[in-house]
Amino acid sequence: MCHFDAEEMEGRLARVRARMEAQDIDALVLQSPASMNYLTGYDAWSFYEPQAVLLDRSAEQPIWLGRPQDANSARLTTRLDEDHVLTYPEEWIEYPDHHPSERFVEVLQERGWDRGRIGIEGDAYYTTPRVWWELQRGLARAEVVDADTLVSWVRSVKSDAEIECMRVAAQIATGAVEIAQEAIRPGVRECDAVAEIVRAQIRGTAEFGGEYPAIFPIVLAGRKSSSSHSSWSDAPFETGNPVVLELAGCRHRYHAALCRTFFLGTPPDGYRRLAEIVGEAHQAAFDAVRPGALCEDVEAAWREVLTRHGMTKESRLGYTIGLAYPPNWGERTASIRPGDLTKLEPNMTFHLLGGLWLDPWGYEVSETIRVTEVGVESLTNFQRGLLVQS
Amino acid sequence: MCHFDAEEMEGRLARVRARMEAQDIDALVLQSPASMNYLTGYDAWSFYEPQAVLLDRSAEQPIWLGRPQDANSARLTTRLDEDHVLTYPEEWIEYPDHHPSERFVEVLQERGWDRGRIGIEGDAYYTTPRVWWELQRGLARAEVVDADTLVSWVRSVKSDAEIECMRVAAQIATGAVEIAQEAIRPGVRECDAVAEIVRAQIRGTAEFGGEYPAIFPIVLAGRKSSSSHSSWSDAPFETGNPVVLELAGCRHRYHAALCRTFFLGTPPDGYRRLAEIVGEAHQAAFDAVRPGALCEDVEAAWREVLTRHGMTKESRLGYTIGLAYPPNWGERTASIRPGDLTKLEPNMTFHLLGGLWLDPWGYEVSETIRVTEVGVESLTNFQRGLLVQS
Repeated sequence: MCHFDAEEMEGRLARVRARMEAQDIDALVLQSPASMNYLTGYDAWSFYEPQAVLLDRSAEQPIWLGRPQDANSARLTTRLDEDHVLTYPEEWIEYPDHHPSERFVEVLQERGWDRGRIGIEGDAYYTTPRVWWELQRGLARAEVVDADTLVSWVRSVKSDAEIECMRVAAQIATGAVEIAQEAIRPGVRECDAVAEIVRAQIRGTAEFGGEYPAIFPIVLAGRKSSSSHSSWSDAPFETGNPVVLELAGCRHRYHAALCRTFFLGTPPDGYRRLAEIVGEAHQAAFDAVRPGALCEDVEAAWREVLTRHGMTKESRLGYTIGLAYPPNWGERTASIRPGDLTKLEPNMTFHLLGGLWLDPWGYEVSETIRVTEVGVESLTNFQRGLLVQS
Repeated sequence: MCHFDAEEMEGRLARVRARMEAQDIDALVLQSPASMNYLTGYDAWSFYEPQAVLLDRSAEQPIWLGRPQDANSARLTTRLDEDHVLTYPEEWIEYPDHHPSERFVEVLQERGWDRGRIGIEGDAYYTTPRVWWELQRGLARAEVVDADTLVSWVRSVKSDAEIECMRVAAQIATGAVEIAQEAIRPGVRECDAVAEIVRAQIRGTAEFGGEYPAIFPIVLAGRKSSSSHSSWSDAPFETGNPVVLELAGCRHRYHAALCRTFFLGTPPDGYRRLAEIVGEAHQAAFDAVRPGALCEDVEAAWREVLTRHGMTKESRLGYTIGLAYPPNWGERTASIRPGDLTKLEPNMTFHLLGGLWLDPWGYEVSETIRVTEVGVESLTNFQRGLLVQS
């Protein structure tokens, strides 16, 4: 049931081992669900309780370690041998006197992986201070260090098989925006429009079903278009307002994200102009993407256009995207912003998001892009520019 | 736009302050989105980047501290004064040389809150080791300690206004199970059924729109019914299999969860019998709920029935539920299990989940319940027992 073949999974392990060697890390305790999936294929909504993938640099296979009732999911979704699927006592769940990470310590000790430098993902979702405290206390022979984003950086360059998943995800995202264009109308409750959008995301295509995206659709109506992560409400959409939409399609946990902005009724000239400027600047950034360019070069192309129009944007223009679980489809590695000297490589994938959050209204447009051998490819495809809903 | 009145919010602060005093905590750095919402009303999908609510025991108001582009959401959803909505530099987002929690330190220092015992939520979602390291390094005058679940325990007893939200959430959950009963049929792709269920969750009722639940519906078909958190697929449901469904309705971030199990076709006698035993044991637990009873008493009533039928269940029978964000609608406080001596109080709310995960099939049934002045009330209401889909 693992969606990738043995060769693909071996390649991932080899690249992670090489990076461990480069960073002088002997073993990893990975708790980010995306890192766990990347190295084993493991997939389940079990990340709300402690779990980990353990990997020693010398080991052939990683170990999955989790809650007893989730071991079957590990058996169903990974190729790990049975003796590499381990559990902690169920009674340690949310129990003040013990913590599941004590079992992380025991297993590292049992396998002799409790020496040298052991890396944790120190700023990743679902790694908590409690885990750090337990590892510090339990691993007397080892030095526990921060290896945050070690695996994420390996993930940032995709295999062709991963790109295939993202192509399907992009198809799903595009289909969901088509549905949004029908659903986001004056008088419709925000929640009812979101319901249709999410339905489309999960149905997917006739050939490929959709999965839950790492973030629910973000739908920002009217004044909320300037508050980039507001929740939807059950108020109806009103004529004379913009609606910013950000969503992703998801396939085998790979994401392609897409933003578009609608206007209900006739947009004021100033807002139409804002959309044109953002569109022009976004296109300039898009055209600047090629292997060997730096992340900051892409941002500079965007900023050059904005500056020419007397505008600025403080936040970054994009970030790597791919394999993800809630709460975020970004990978927390390279960002399209000043000072980021990451060199673009073929099969890196970014969510290139041009957005301005002004008073009273914001405007956003984005694509999920792939760096190709010679330039750039947009995985998502939908009419750009302000979408006027009459 | 805060959904609760000033008196309600004052009461919450007072109860948290009292608990801080009891635990000898001078200030809190809260990063769990549910704790942040509970004390301020703050609501946005911004928890994928560092953010916090800071509260000194002597202060009248807490401080919201987050990303600049989310400050407008704080202004829209809380009653905090403008000088209590603070931000960190946007360029510190996912930036190796700085971390937003350095700003947590600065603000604590600026307000003179950087002394005594400062508590963090050491095992809560979105509190990372990195935050702990920064606070430890930056707060020389204070002792940084673990105050995990301090606010969660206050949250575990609901106000009447909170119960009202949970009643609406329960209505939404019930409606979604009705839709599931139509959608989960042999030959239908799993993803297409989930799409209809989520659509119903987000539409909510004619009067009250739904919000995103903390967990996507869990739909476990056939063999997956024994792996409690597996993902759905795009394979069609097959006759001769059970389908376990777990979902929640959500209103103003308050959840009511509900599990039912379907059987597609004619269930084998043994499975029908399993459903009856679980149903009987679940009812016994339900009937044992009353103010003054201990959590473990409720579990004992369930276990007594199972034992009589020669069965056991290792995992807990329930947990407190309410205000929540992804990835979990549970509150990580009291559990219905042996050894939990928490005394039930009126307006505590639990997800009382009777489930057995056997080989090859599992079975689940649950209700979200409220402890009343004299006994128990089920907030969710749907036909119990195995739901046979012909």
